[in-house]
Amino acid sequence: MRQVSNYARSLMMAMLIIGLGQGQALAQQDARTQVVQKTKVVFQVSDGDSRKWDLALNNIKNVIKDMGRDNIEVEVVAYGPGIDMFKFESPAASRIEEVIKMGAHVVICENTMRAQKISKADMLENLGYVEAGVSQLIKRQQQGYAYIRP
Amino acid sequence: MRQVSNYARSLMMAMLIIGLGQGQALAQQDARTQVVQKTKVVFQVSDGDSRKWDLALNNIKNVIKDMGRDNIEVEVVAYGPGIDMFKFESPAASRIEEVIKMGAHVVICENTMRAQKISKADMLENLGYVEAGVSQLIKRQQQGYAYIRP
Amino acid sequence: MRQVSNYARSLMMAMLIIGLGQGQALAQQDARTQVVQKTKVVFQVSDGDSRKWDLALNNIKNVIKDMGRDNIEVEVVAYGPGIDMFKFESPAASRIEEVIKMGAHVVICENTMRAQKISKADMLENLGYVEAGVSQLIKRQQQGYAYIRP
Repeated sequence: MRQVSNYARSLMMAMLIIGLGQGQALAQQDARTQVVQKTKVVFQVSDGDSRKWDLALNNIKNVIKDMGRDNIEVEVVAYGPGIDMFKFESPAASRIEEVIKMGAHVVICENTMRAQKISKADMLENLGYVEAGVSQLIKRQQQGYAYIRP
Repeated sequence: MRQVSNYARSLMMAMLIIGLGQGQALAQQDARTQVVQKTKVVFQVSDGDSRKWDLALNNIKNVIKDMGRDNIEVEVVAYGPGIDMFKFESPAASRIEEVIKMGAHVVICENTMRAQKISKADMLENLGYVEAGVSQLIKRQQQGYAYIRP
Repeated sequence: MRQVSNYARSLMMAMLIIGLGQGQALAQQDARTQVVQKTKVVFQVSDGDSRKWDLALNNIKNVIKDMGRDNIEVEVVAYGPGIDMFKFESPAASRIEEVIKMGAHVVICENTMRAQKISKADMLENLGYVEAGVSQLIKRQQQGYAYIRP
């Protein structure tokens, strides 16, 4: 053992550290993969049909109940004729409030609002807003969200 | 060569083994990625519209023919008004039997069945059942299934 | 330092090279992951409803404007009743030409064309063709495209 020079010992330690570093890199990669696999879902609401809204609301409630509120992240993206669901006078208002209390997030497309010449004052409370609803749906899928179009 | 002590030789062998082990880990990771890339698809049937059912059945037949029965795994998830497609008296019954024989799996949402107060006796044969259809669609996407909503 | 034999020095160099090679493999893997994360989206057009066509065209324009033409790849897959959108006499013809000029690609399902007994001469210009529209939608999702069904 004493026959090995300091130079060789340093080199071997360096290589051992490189080796351990790479093991760690792989472990971190696995951790990142697990984060992606956490259950996240984005619902698209783009129809002006109130039966579709009821179906979407049932879907959201069932998923949160079935998977457990702490195990799922639900986002609803409304655009086009679908934003009517979240207007102040919406027939679904009380049920929407209910799913928001259950933890669902709702985001509305500002492109659609401009096209319809309406403002946030015309919408229900506790909503979020994004520039383009479709871009949001794309980004969420890229982030590992499942996509449901009721 | 004899000047290198046993200690140094053991250390070098250990590092070589670590190195090979990491190479293997990367190879396994590639293998896992390939498994995810095997073609799997889940079809959503949530409309009570029989033209949509015909379109879904055409889609499923075309995909199985186009990709080859052994290269694709097809699952159909029916919920909401879509479960009518798979009821005993369904006008699509014979064509459904045909795609099931071609290898497609069908699963029905039990939440919807409870809401409609119907039982498995009211449904066609050779179907599977899940607690919540939407949860199934989410899980399948997380498992790498493509999603098609006809 | 001179006490370390040539054999040992070669072995250490070999291990260092293996180590660096693995670092490179991880870096390449990250690069591949980034390619997958480049924004790509496939739009499904399968309805014979011209309001849906307008919504799809608005969606495509908004996404290209919002994300920037160089940052997004947009493909439109038309099948079933949806191929009417791209027929020669389509009311949406001029707007379709516009989104194609903005960089969107359109592909039409040849299975549907055969079923409708129509040929490419019946369709608009600058379109692509695939054997089965649904297979294309599946392949694109497997390649990391987000999926939007307007």
